[in-house]
This record gives sequence, C-alpha cells and structure tokens, in this order.
Amino acid sequence: MPLAAASADTGDTAWLLAATALVLLMTPGLALFYGGMVRTKSVLNMLMMSFVSIALVTVVWLAAGYSLAFGDDTAGGLIGGLEHAGMSGLGPDSLQGTVPTLLFATFQLTFAIITAALVSGAVADRAKFGAWLVFVPVWALLVYVPVAHWVWGPGGWILEKLGALDFAGGLPVEIVSGASGLALCLVLGPRLGFKKDAMRPHNLPMVMLGAGLLWFGWFGFNAGSALGANGLAAAAFLNTLAAGCTGLLGWLFVEQKRDGHPTTLGAASGAVAGLVAITPSCGSVSLLGALVVGLTAGAICSYAVSWKFKLNYDDSLDVVGVHLVGGIIGTLLIGVFAVESMTGGAEGFLYGGGLGQLGKQLLAVVVVAAYAFGVTYGIGRLIDATLGFRASEEQEQTGLDLTVHAETAYDHGVLGHGAPVSSSVVPSAQKVTPQA
Amino acid sequence: MPLAAASADTGDTAWLLAATALVLLMTPGLALFYGGMVRTKSVLNMLMMSFVSIALVTVVWLAAGYSLAFGDDTAGGLIGGLEHAGMSGLGPDSLQGTVPTLLFATFQLTFAIITAALVSGAVADRAKFGAWLVFVPVWALLVYVPVAHWVWGPGGWILEKLGALDFAGGLPVEIVSGASGLALCLVLGPRLGFKKDAMRPHNLPMVMLGAGLLWFGWFGFNAGSALGANGLAAAAFLNTLAAGCTGLLGWLFVEQKRDGHPTTLGAASGAVAGLVAITPSCGSVSLLGALVVGLTAGAICSYAVSWKFKLNYDDSLDVVGVHLVGGIIGTLLIGVFAVESMTGGAEGFLYGGGLGQLGKQLLAVVVVAAYAFGVTYGIGRLIDATLGFRASEEQEQTGLDLTVHAETAYDHGVLGHGAPVSSSVVPSAQKVTPQA
Amino acid sequence: MPLAAASADTGDTAWLLAATALVLLMTPGLALFYGGMVRTKSVLNMLMMSFVSIALVTVVWLAAGYSLAFGDDTAGGLIGGLEHAGMSGLGPDSLQGTVPTLLFATFQLTFAIITAALVSGAVADRAKFGAWLVFVPVWALLVYVPVAHWVWGPGGWILEKLGALDFAGGLPVEIVSGASGLALCLVLGPRLGFKKDAMRPHNLPMVMLGAGLLWFGWFGFNAGSALGANGLAAAAFLNTLAAGCTGLLGWLFVEQKRDGHPTTLGAASGAVAGLVAITPSCGSVSLLGALVVGLTAGAICSYAVSWKFKLNYDDSLDVVGVHLVGGIIGTLLIGVFAVESMTGGAEGFLYGGGLGQLGKQLLAVVVVAAYAFGVTYGIGRLIDATLGFRASEEQEQTGLDLTVHAETAYDHGVLGHGAPVSSSVVPSAQKVTPQA
Repeated sequence: MPLAAASADTGDTAWLLAATALVLLMTPGLALFYGGMVRTKSVLNMLMMSFVSIALVTVVWLAAGYSLAFGDDTAGGLIGGLEHAGMSGLGPDSLQGTVPTLLFATFQLTFAIITAALVSGAVADRAKFGAWLVFVPVWALLVYVPVAHWVWGPGGWILEKLGALDFAGGLPVEIVSGASGLALCLVLGPRLGFKKDAMRPHNLPMVMLGAGLLWFGWFGFNAGSALGANGLAAAAFLNTLAAGCTGLLGWLFVEQKRDGHPTTLGAASGAVAGLVAITPSCGSVSLLGALVVGLTAGAICSYAVSWKFKLNYDDSLDVVGVHLVGGIIGTLLIGVFAVESMTGGAEGFLYGGGLGQLGKQLLAVVVVAAYAFGVTYGIGRLIDATLGFRASEEQEQTGLDLTVHAETAYDHGVLGHGAPVSSSVVPSAQKVTPQA
Repeated sequence: MPLAAASADTGDTAWLLAATALVLLMTPGLALFYGGMVRTKSVLNMLMMSFVSIALVTVVWLAAGYSLAFGDDTAGGLIGGLEHAGMSGLGPDSLQGTVPTLLFATFQLTFAIITAALVSGAVADRAKFGAWLVFVPVWALLVYVPVAHWVWGPGGWILEKLGALDFAGGLPVEIVSGASGLALCLVLGPRLGFKKDAMRPHNLPMVMLGAGLLWFGWFGFNAGSALGANGLAAAAFLNTLAAGCTGLLGWLFVEQKRDGHPTTLGAASGAVAGLVAITPSCGSVSLLGALVVGLTAGAICSYAVSWKFKLNYDDSLDVVGVHLVGGIIGTLLIGVFAVESMTGGAEGFLYGGGLGQLGKQLLAVVVVAAYAFGVTYGIGRLIDATLGFRASEEQEQTGLDLTVHAETAYDHGVLGHGAPVSSSVVPSAQKVTPQA
Repeated sequence: MPLAAASADTGDTAWLLAATALVLLMTPGLALFYGGMVRTKSVLNMLMMSFVSIALVTVVWLAAGYSLAFGDDTAGGLIGGLEHAGMSGLGPDSLQGTVPTLLFATFQLTFAIITAALVSGAVADRAKFGAWLVFVPVWALLVYVPVAHWVWGPGGWILEKLGALDFAGGLPVEIVSGASGLALCLVLGPRLGFKKDAMRPHNLPMVMLGAGLLWFGWFGFNAGSALGANGLAAAAFLNTLAAGCTGLLGWLFVEQKRDGHPTTLGAASGAVAGLVAITPSCGSVSLLGALVVGLTAGAICSYAVSWKFKLNYDDSLDVVGVHLVGGIIGTLLIGVFAVESMTGGAEGFLYGGGLGQLGKQLLAVVVVAAYAFGVTYGIGRLIDATLGFRASEEQEQTGLDLTVHAETAYDHGVLGHGAPVSSSVVPSAQKVTPQA
C-alpha cells in the first residue's frame, strides 16, 4: 500500500477524511447494534465496551501500534519497527501516497478500534469491566497489530511475500475478531441460562439503527481502502452495496424456508454477513462475484449462528457465526472471483486464474485464524487467572448496568416533580453527576 | 447530464462518493422516521419494508434498471436500451463526466431505493410482506426506471425535449412516490380503525432521529446531484438547508394558529416538506426562491395531510400529503424562481422568464403523476388479485411484527436470569436465531 | 481566514461539503444527547429547542448574521458590514479561498446553529417555548455574530489584532455557549426539585447515540475548519480523535476513584469534554498536546459539573461544566502546546514560545466569556420581564411535552385495534395531524 508518491491530492485526501469519519461512526453503530441485542439489564455495559475500545485502542495505536504495524519491516514480514512510536517523525506535511500520513494512520486506527469492539459481542453480559480495560490494549498490540502488518505493512508476509489479497480487512478485522471472540467466549464460559432462557433482543429498532449506521460507515471502510477517490473506490463501493443486499436476501430466504418467517434480526444479520464477506474482496472481485459473495455469506452465516448451540460455546452476539465465517467466505472467494481489471494482476479460478490464488487465500486464513485464536486465548486465560475475567454470578443475575455502572438504561418512572410513579422494576440507582 | 468528459476529477469523485453514502443512509433514516410513527405492534414491519427495498431495488437496478434508465435512448425519449444490463461494459475505468460511471450508477441507484421505501409509508400496518417483496422490483422497473429516463436519461423527453427542469428528483422521487403511494393505499384500503382510533406515533424521538438522518443525507441527495464539488453544489446545499428551515417554520406556524400548539411531529414533517419541495428546485432557484419554496411547502403540506380524512384514503404516514404535494410545489415553483446564474439559461416568471417554464413544469408534473398513479394502481390490483396485497384482519389486529416476523420490537420484560418479570402484554415470540 | 485565492479546488470543496453536512448532523445529535438526559415528560421539548434553533439561526444568518460576522470590518475589529445582507452579491461562482463562498458561509452557519442549541441544555424542562423562539434570533445576532467576527472575521480584533488563536471555535462556540447558558439558567432559576429529586436520564442509550453522532460530526467541525483537504486537516482530525479518547478516560478515571464506578454518562460526558477542549486547539497543538488537553478537560470537567450544586445554579445538562470549563481549558492550553509546524508561527510555552501566547489566550477568554454572559443575561432578563421566560409551575410539573406540544414521547399503550391496553400514565394527548 505505501507508495513513494509524487504529491498530495486534495480529492484523494477529501475522500479519505470523509471515509475515516465514516469508519469511526461504525463503532458507535456497532455499540447500538450489539446494545439492542442484549437484555435491558446489560445494555449500557455493552455500549461501554465499544466506547472504551475507541479510547484504549487509540492510545495504544499512537504510542506504538501504528509504528509496529506500518513501520518498516524488521523481522521477515512479521512486524514493523518502532521508528514512528508516539507518531514521531510524522507531521502535517508527511505524505503516504497522495494523502497525509497522519490521515492514513488515523484511517488505519479506526479499523483497529472496531475490531476490538467486535470481540465484545462474544462475551456480552458477563465480562468483568476492569478485565476488559486490560484486555483491549494488550490484545490490540499482540493480535491486531501484527496481523495488520502481515497484510498491509511494508514488507508484510501475507500480501508482499505470499501474495494473498485482502482489500479492506477480511483477515485483520473479520477473521481476527471472529477467532478472538471464539477464544474469549471459551475462556469466560456461557452466560447463566444459556440454551435455557430466551434472551431476546431488548430493542430491535436499536439493532436496525445500528445496522444502518454500520452499513453507512462500511462504505468508508471498503471504498476508503482504495486510499483515493478513483474508479477502484467506486467499484469497491458498488460491490459493498451489492453484497450487503444479497446477504440480506440470502439470510431471509433461508429463514423463510427453515422457520417460516423472515425476521428483522435476520435482515440486519444478513446484511452484515454480506458486508463482512465483501470486506476482503470488494477491491478484487467482479460485480457478479460480489453478488455471489454476499448471497453465500448470508445463507451460510444464517446456519453458522446456530452452531454454538450444538457445540456449546456462548458466542452471545454471533461474532463467530458472522465475522469469522463471513470473513473466511469472503477471503476465500477472492480466489474464485478476482478479476484482473480490479486487482491489476491476480485472477480467480472462475476467470482463468487457476487454483493458485485460492490456495494462497486459504493459507492466509488458516494462519491468521489460528494466530488470533491462540494468542487471544492465552491473553484471556492470563487475565482470568490474575484479575478474573468473569463477572460475579450476582452481577450477572442483576445485570451489569446496575452493579458495575450504577445506572439503568431506561427510566420512565418519574413523570412529575413530587409525584414519582415508578414503573421501573429495578432498584433506584444513584444519580451519577451530583456526587463528589 | 452525461457529458463526454475529458478526464476524472478526484475532488468531484470524492464528493460523489460521500454523497452516495449519505443518500444510502436516508433509507435507514426513513425507516426510523416511519417506524417511530406507527404503533408498537408493527414497527418492525415498517423497518423491514425499507430495508428489503434496499436489497430488491439494488438487484433490479444492476440487472436492468440502470441500463434502461441511463442507457442510450431507444424510443423517442421514453426508455433507454439494455446495453449495460448486468452493468456490462462498465469497469473501474469507465467515466461519466468527471466521475467513475460505476459511482454515477450507484448514486442514481440510491435514489431508486428511497423512492420505493417512501411508498411503504402509504400502506403502513396492513400490507402483506410477501406481496411487498413482489411489488418492489416490478414497480421499480415499470414506474421508477422510465420516469428517471424521462428526466435524466440521455435523450429523455422531459429534460431534453420538453425542457422542464428537475435538479434532484421532484419528478422521479417525490411525485412518483407520492402518486404511487396514493394508488397503493387505494388498492389496500384503510387500516382497521382509520378515523376512529388515535393511532399515535409510538416513539417520537425515533421520528426525530429519522428526520435528522434524512436531513443529513439530503445534502448528499441534492448537492450531490451537481455531480461535482463546485459552486452549483454549494448553492444547492445552502438552498436545501434554507428550505428545510422555512418548511419547519411554516408548518409550526400553521399548527400554532390552527391547533394552539407546535408539535414535534409538525417540526419534523415541516422540515421534510421543505426538503421535498427544494429537491427539484435546489439547483435552479435563487436563495429567496428556496426560502419561499420551503415556507410554501411547510404551510400547504400541513393542511394537505388532513385531506385523507375528508377524502377517505388512508395514506397512513402522509406520503401523499408531504411528497406528492411538496414535490408538485417545488417542481412548479422552478417556473417562478429559476435564475439564470443557477440554470445556465432558463429563468422563472419572477426573474423575467415569462410563463413558459412554468407551463413546462406543469406538463411534466401532470404526466409523471398520472403515469405513476396509473401504473402503480395496475400493479397493485394485479398483485391483490393474485397473491393478495392485504394482511389478514387477525394479523393487522395483533400486529404484523408478531404475526409475520415472529418478533416484537421491544422486550423489557426479562430482567434477570431465572426471574422473568414480563411487562410485555404480547405473547412470547420465538427467539429467532437458535432455531434450525 | 479569507484569502485572495487563485481558483477553486474540487478536493477542498469536496471535503468542506462533507464537513458542512457533518456539522449540521451535530445538532440533531445534540438533541438526542440532551433528550436522553432529561426526564420522559420533557424530552420532546428538549428536541424541539434544538430543531427550531436550526431554523431560526439559519434565517437570521442569511438575513444579516453572515454579513455582520464575515463582511469587511466596519468598527475597529468589532463587527462586519451589511454588504452581504440577504447574501447579496454572492453567487455560485463566488470564491472564499479555494472553496465557494456560499459553502464557506453555510459551514460557518452550522457553527452558529449548534452554539444556540447548546445553550438550551442549561434551561432544560422549564423554559417557555415561545420565549425560546424569541431568544434564539436575538441572541444569535447580538452574541454569536459579534464574537465570530472578533475571532474569524476579516479584521476581527481577537485573531488579527490581539493574535489569540482559535482554530474551530473555543471562543465563539464553547465559551459563548457555556457563558450564555450560565446567564440563562440564572435568569430562569432552578427546576422544581433541583437538588431534591434524582432527575435521572430517561434514556441512556439515546445519550450514547447522541454522543456518537456528535463525535462523528465533530470531525467535520474541527478538520473542516482547515477549509481544505490537506495536512492541517489531517492533523486536526487526529487531534480531535485523540483528545476525545483521553477526555473519556480522564472522566472515567476520576469517577472510578471518586464514586467507585465508571458510568456510561461519564464516558459520554468525558468524550464531549475532550472534544470541546480540543476544538480551539486542534489546529495548533502537537499530538502530545492534544492528549493532554483531552485528559485535562475530562478530569477537570468531571468535577466542574458538580459546582452547580454548591453554587446553586441549575445548569441542568452541564453546559457550564463541560462547554465553558472545557472551552477555557482548550483555549488556554494553546498557549502551552502550540507548535510552529501547525500554527505556522506562534509557539506555546512548552515549545519555547514564552508566556506571551498564553496571555493573549487568557485575555480573549475573559473578554468573550464576560461579553457572552453579560449580553445574554440582559436579553434573558428583558424577555423574562416582557414575555416571561419560565414555564408555569403546572406545565413544569406535568411536563412540557404534554402541556406545550400536546404530545408524549412514547406511546406503547395501544397494542391492538379496538383493544387499547394503556400502560401510559399520562393523559391522552390529541392526535396531532388529523385536526383542522
């Protein structure tokens, strides 16, 4: 990705500024998407896990993460150097290709942020908040940063040595978040009542709002990855829309056939599954490819989200079923649908490129999934053994909002001064601000 | 609109990329705007009609719609050809003016999407979901696509032959959605309890959120229609803001005078009415014109939404009262307020252009409204006669969310594991994901 | 800021178009942020105060505000002329630097809008709606417009004569809104039940949604203030993200130490405090400076929001504690952390610039805060003495939504036609639209 560029381009910069803002909005969007899916008693905790991820990952990224991921390679394609730690050596005039380096670094930062936030969906309703605050920075440095270097860093082994393709983050974002989520939900164990209680989403319009904001931001994520305002960005944009659509249709089709009713949650999940799968492939596949990638992901993920009930891992909000599975589908299908007019070289099986590219994609998928799962599992176990990673049974029963954050999400009870008519069934939390 | 352009411009492309994302956000925004207005029992169905419109219209557009609308004219200004069916012949390097053709096609697609979604407001709470899935693609091909060709396609009769102006979609979007909505609510008949029950919006903050997202996206809609980052885009942007503001003020003023209280729903509706009216005219009228267009639409539409009670058509969420009426106002007023510095030629009555432009605008309005009404009515009747278009009385009574989608929008009942405290008065729906 | 530019730049224009849309979204975002914090009975009134601010400020700005703020100076740096009243003399071809003047004027307008809306947080739940409609335009002309001229207008005394720096609005937006809010809540007096009732936020997910939209829009606010797509915009963007993050962490850290629990409201408030403080400084401080600015603001503001309980002013939603205090912190710290690579000249104390810049910043802060407080207090008193500014006790008790707007925010009571199951404890409001 790093090019020795001649000069800045205001148009490319304008698009990347907008795209970076769009990607940052995805994390609040994800917070709502996840927050709507959990029960009323822990929605704030769900939102908090996303919001603190923004803050923690940013600090880690600026301190060292950016440099390790995008600094010059220091270890055979495995990790970058520390020459830009603390963003040293970078100022407003530094350029990366045709855009300011500080902007490129910020764009990449937003990817790291949402990947951390995605993991939280696997451990909804039961993670100790303090443990999450420790987990995120450690995990960002040890898991996200190296994989980002492998894929996009100068000299990274996956793109530059192996030649596997990943336009916008099937490996570092989707597969990493999915494999990490799987590891973490194994460390924490299932929620109380898993497979027994219904645990229905408490607010589906909030889920749909989150899905809408995610889709909106995803255009920045995928088309922004062209790092310029050009035809490749346009094609990636259209592929992103197309795959989200067929993902939605694929999931609803399976639901209708299987369960007899198409659900709102299915529509949102299907769109996200399609978007996940097109993330790695949006910049390399044909439009036909995008439609198939989305449809395949929507259909397969609609089954994958039920594996947890058979295999007994409580991936609460389906990070594995949607992001790991969808990410694998999209990364592999590059080997089938890549076209030379997009990649500038590599071609998929369907377009005469043979099976070589598919093999490269498969290798990258396996290594990244294994690495993310293994290291995250280690980090999780270590935190669990020291600080403890799981909230107490009482906290989980009562809900994390009240017990950890001393708040409740909704309070419609007091409708007039001096005439409190409490319809709230939870005990009164302290009002927060007036203290001290 | 199609120009034989010299070369791509990254700045123009950057703005159109951002604008396209903005317009796409309008459909989730509309879903919330509409969803907040209906009763709790059918909010998810309302959201679903918008979300599936994204998916269905996209597929139709890529398959044939884009080509028929924007391909070279094949029938005297009535319809384009199929040379780009399946987007054939278009790649990342194709240009439309100074922007990638794939981006232009995607931008136009987002207009088709929201027009379909707008129609759903007329049939809230009572349409058979399966029928909607059939209606949308047929309607998109037979109604939206031809009108888009008439107005913006190469050789289209309205712009190129008649010389009527429509900058951002008063005809294909606003008037078409309004006239189609009228046709469809006549086909379906009124909701049970129409004119008897209150049917108050179940969530007005959701309506305001939707209005905010719509307004935000509308800047992409209108200023993006300049297809470049230039002074015309800037003027269209400011006109869009100005008209939304006077629309809001106009509606609230009427409410205060007539009903004695300015309402939140009125503020949102007034802003939308102003935005609807400025859509065709934002690129041709003076700033004074924009202020008057918005004010006129806000004031008149605040009356138009009550016509349904006198004339007995249940246009449930006021697609006719706001989009048809507002669209007509804005399209006609071009004939009054157009200025040469915006249009590059045509002038309105007020600026010395005589009544000629007004006549052209009127002809276009009448033909488009009649065409959209007639063809939509035919499609609706046909679907009703075959599949049935109206949900059963029992479904409507209980609500479409539970009976069609097996979900309820909100579930605040279960507040602790093992201690379900159901405050929900609807029967328990199956949890969706764990099945199969 | 006004430059005699050679020619338009489509990239700069593209970014400013997007940035202007982003800033406009902040006001609906603020409406939700504030709306979620109040009690159920007055949420719509809170939303309305923001939405009408959009409309009222726009009309005032176009009529005279823009010209007085950004027209050529007519009074020794104190106020501009009326040469562009009604936007006269400005057309699609007018340029301001490399961007259309109409776009520059619209961008600046969005700043004026949100400043007015911010003030409403200080008078939540008890302001007469009619008085607010009078207050906003008068206040915009007499308070916002002059200060904007001092800071950014051609010949304005603060930037051009004194040499104090303010990149994106610490003075005209943050300090002005905070000082005005303080004045207005003194005029109105505290809410019934102030310091006695809990007055908990009725919907914290809505607060977080608002915070997410605000943060998203803030990138347009701050990075857009570079008025171009360049390295300075990139640096301002990154500083904005960084300071929001450390603001969040600073606030949560204090909460944990002080109260024993990190809250959602604290996370949102801390991020906003950091964003407020970086607003003036994002274009002049180093990255280290940005991190410190955010952290300082987050920590100090987490205390500042409780001053009202000791000093007995009911700044209901903490406009003083967050915007006045945060704005002062950020404006002053420019004198410490400014670097020449950002400012093109001025340097802060820490980077060898001495104490001179800090002195200039301090003078600007004091004058602007005093001016805004004094004039707003005068306007408020005048309105209170004539129209009355405070709602009646009965309205406040029952809630402004029902008594002023004849609406209630939520209605989950009627779940089926003919079978109303009212769970609402407020009396039935008239349905709004079908009247007349």
